[in-house]
Amino acid sequence: MAPLPTIALLTDFGYSDAYVGVMKAVLLTRCPHARLLDLTHGIAPQDVRAGALLLASAVPYCPAGTVFLAVVDPGVGGERRAICLRGGGHLFVGPDNGLLWPAASTEATLAAEGVPAAFHLDRPEHWLTATPGATFHGRDVFAPIAAALTAGRAPEDLGTPLDDPVRLDPPRPTRNAGEVRGEVLLIDHFGNAVTNLRPVDLDHPAPGAAAFEVAGRVLAGPDTHYAARREGEIVIVAGSLGYYEIAVRGGSAARALDLKPGSPVTARRRQERSAGR
Amino acid sequence: MAPLPTIALLTDFGYSDAYVGVMKAVLLTRCPHARLLDLTHGIAPQDVRAGALLLASAVPYCPAGTVFLAVVDPGVGGERRAICLRGGGHLFVGPDNGLLWPAASTEATLAAEGVPAAFHLDRPEHWLTATPGATFHGRDVFAPIAAALTAGRAPEDLGTPLDDPVRLDPPRPTRNAGEVRGEVLLIDHFGNAVTNLRPVDLDHPAPGAAAFEVAGRVLAGPDTHYAARREGEIVIVAGSLGYYEIAVRGGSAARALDLKPGSPVTARRRQERSAGR
Amino acid sequence: MAPLPTIALLTDFGYSDAYVGVMKAVLLTRCPHARLLDLTHGIAPQDVRAGALLLASAVPYCPAGTVFLAVVDPGVGGERRAICLRGGGHLFVGPDNGLLWPAASTEATLAAEGVPAAFHLDRPEHWLTATPGATFHGRDVFAPIAAALTAGRAPEDLGTPLDDPVRLDPPRPTRNAGEVRGEVLLIDHFGNAVTNLRPVDLDHPAPGAAAFEVAGRVLAGPDTHYAARREGEIVIVAGSLGYYEIAVRGGSAARALDLKPGSPVTARRRQERSAGR
Repeated sequence: MAPLPTIALLTDFGYSDAYVGVMKAVLLTRCPHARLLDLTHGIAPQDVRAGALLLASAVPYCPAGTVFLAVVDPGVGGERRAICLRGGGHLFVGPDNGLLWPAASTEATLAAEGVPAAFHLDRPEHWLTATPGATFHGRDVFAPIAAALTAGRAPEDLGTPLDDPVRLDPPRPTRNAGEVRGEVLLIDHFGNAVTNLRPVDLDHPAPGAAAFEVAGRVLAGPDTHYAARREGEIVIVAGSLGYYEIAVRGGSAARALDLKPGSPVTARRRQERSAGR
Repeated sequence: MAPLPTIALLTDFGYSDAYVGVMKAVLLTRCPHARLLDLTHGIAPQDVRAGALLLASAVPYCPAGTVFLAVVDPGVGGERRAICLRGGGHLFVGPDNGLLWPAASTEATLAAEGVPAAFHLDRPEHWLTATPGATFHGRDVFAPIAAALTAGRAPEDLGTPLDDPVRLDPPRPTRNAGEVRGEVLLIDHFGNAVTNLRPVDLDHPAPGAAAFEVAGRVLAGPDTHYAARREGEIVIVAGSLGYYEIAVRGGSAARALDLKPGSPVTARRRQERSAGR
Repeated sequence: MAPLPTIALLTDFGYSDAYVGVMKAVLLTRCPHARLLDLTHGIAPQDVRAGALLLASAVPYCPAGTVFLAVVDPGVGGERRAICLRGGGHLFVGPDNGLLWPAASTEATLAAEGVPAAFHLDRPEHWLTATPGATFHGRDVFAPIAAALTAGRAPEDLGTPLDDPVRLDPPRPTRNAGEVRGEVLLIDHFGNAVTNLRPVDLDHPAPGAAAFEVAGRVLAGPDTHYAARREGEIVIVAGSLGYYEIAVRGGSAARALDLKPGSPVTARRRQERSAGR
C-alpha cells in the first residue's frame, strides 16, 4: 500500500471547544484518505513564538511530504495574509505572522534548497466560502487549502508567489568575554524551562564543566539526565529540542525558580570547580 | 477508494483519564475501518446545553453519513433512555437528555426532512454486555451501537421508534420596543463570550451601527474582526458559530467583564452615534 | 479488508507541548498504516501508579494484538531499562518501572499464559538513533520499537529475554474482623474517587447493604447509579474500572471530602440499618 498523505496540525485552539474538531471535519470531508496528526492544540492563546518553536521541533520527525496546517492567529480577519510555504520537502499553511517560518527554513532546508518558496493564498474560489467569517480562518481558509494540497494541488494553483513572508527567528544567544547570554524560550508541561542555549554554544561541555546562572543562582552543569540529581534538586540537561533545559527532579523548575519565557539565563565554561548547587 | 465511514465524538469525559480511549477501543474493535473524529472531550462536566450547542455547530462541516457519538450524561444508569436520532443525513447516538436534539434538527434538516426520526435503544443484545455498568454507557451501550450503525446496521434494527425524544433548544432572544434581549451561551477557550444574538436579530447592522449592553457597559458594534480594536479593548464580532461574540483583543472577555453562561446581553440599532467604548 | 494494526498510547506528556505529536510522527513515518489510539496523555506528571491502573483498565477493550506504547518515566536517561512485555495477546513497550506490569499480567492473562514474557530492549540499532537523548525515550527508543513490533518484528529480535521486570501491583485491601480496609487509587476528571475496593471484597452487597467509612463519615451503600441520589449528595457506586467509586451527584467528591490518592476507605456489611447519610 502507498503511504497515506499526512496533515499535521498545530493550533492554540485548546481542547474545550469544537474548533479543532470542526477544522478536522473540513479536512476529512475534502480529503477523506488523509491521516491527521495532531502535534498539539495547546499552544498558549496567541503565542506565535511558542507555536513556531514547537512546530519547527516536530518537522524533522514527520513523514516526507507532510502538509502542516498551523494556526496561531491574533490577526485573524484583518490584513495579515494567508500563506503557504514550501521547504524541506513539506508544505506549510497558515497565517503570515512568522509562525511557519522556522519550521520551513531549518538549517538543513536552507543548506539544500535555500529560502522556502512562499505563496499568498489569495484565491477565494479554493476556500470553504468566498466570504470567510472574521474569526475562523482555520475552518474557512486554511483547512480547504491544506486539503487541496494534500489531494495533490500545487501551491502555484492556490496562490500567488510572494517574496516577503514574515520571518520569525527564535532569539539567538549573545556572547561576551566567554559568557553566553540567553533566555527561556518556553515552559513545558512538566515545568521544565527550555532555554535558547545549545551545547554548541559552550563548545559541548562535559558534565559539570559549565556554570549556568539562572534566577540569581549559579549552578554547575550540564547533567547527564534528570535522574542524575535527587528529588527536588535542579537539573540542567540538553533536552529533546536540542537546547539546554532547566528542570527540577520530580517537580517544576518554572514554579521553583519563578521562570517564564524571556527569563535570562547565562552560561560559561567553568575555570574552576567552585560553582555550587 | 470509497470514503471511510466516520464516527464523530463529543463528550465531557476530559483528557486526564482513559474513558475516551476505552470508548474508542470499543469502536475500533467492532468497526476496524472507521475513522474517528474527535470534536471535543472538553465539555464542562455535565453541561448538556454547551455540549448540544457545540455538537450542532460541527454538524454542517462533517462528511455526509457521519455517525455522531455524544455523551454528556448526568443521568447515566438511571431512567433516562438511550436513543438514536436520524436527521440531516446523519445518525446521532447518546443519552435522551436533549444533547443530540439541536444537532439532528437544524433549520436545514427541519425544512427538508421534518423532525428527526428517533429510536429508543432498548435491545441489550447489541450492547457490549446485556448488563451494562451503572456509570459508563459510552463504553457499554453507545459505542457498540455507534459501531453497529457505522458497519451498516439500521437504527430500526437496534431500537424501537420513539415519538417523544427530549428536545433542548438554545434560549432564543426576546424583542421589546426595538431592543433584543439575549444572553451568553458559553465561554470559549480564548475567554470569548458567545451570545445567542445573531446578525439577523438586528437586521444585519453595518459595523458600528448597533449598541450592545453587557456587564453594565454600552458598546458600539459590531466590529469587523478581532484586530479592529487595540490590545485590551472590547471587540464584538459575528463569530464562527453564527452568533455575536464578545471578546477582548489579546485577552479574556470572560475575565475582564465577569461573564458566564446566562449573563444578559441586550442590543439595539443605534439612533445616534453616542454609544461609547 | 484485514484489520489495521493498532498502537495504543498512554503517557504523562500532557497536551500543551508537541511531545505526543512528535512521538506519533515517528510511529507514522515508520509504520504508515498503523492506527493510533490515544488512551490518554493526561496522566499526572510521573504518576506511574495511576498510569499503570488506567493502562490496565483499557486493555480488555482493545483489539487483539494491540501494541501498547506507554511512557510515564521519571527515570528517563538513567539506569532503568527499556522493556517489552508480552501478555494477553498484546505487546507492551515502555520503561521498566512497573507501568506496564498490571496491564500485561491481568488475572485472565495469568490464568491462561502465566506471567508475561519480558524483554530488555538493549539493541540500539533498532532505535531512532544509537545515542538517544537523555530526556525523550518516547521519541528515540520506544516509538521506533513499537513501530517495528507493529510492522511484524518479534520482541526476540529487538531485545534480550529478561526474568525480573519491575512489578507494580495496585495496593490490595486488607481484612480484619469483617472490615475491609482500602484506599483511594485515583481521582478522575469528574472528581470521583476510585477506591481499591471491589464488590467481591464485600460478597457483592445489595444496594444499601454495606457501610463505607470515608473522610470521617459513615455512609450506607452501594447505590445503583449516580442519579440515585439528589444533587450534592454522596454516591457510592461500582464504577467502570470494577472498583467502588465515591462521587458527589453533580459535583466533585474529591473537593467535597478532600480525597486524594491514598486516602483511607473502609467498608463492611451492615448488621443493621443505622448507617446515616
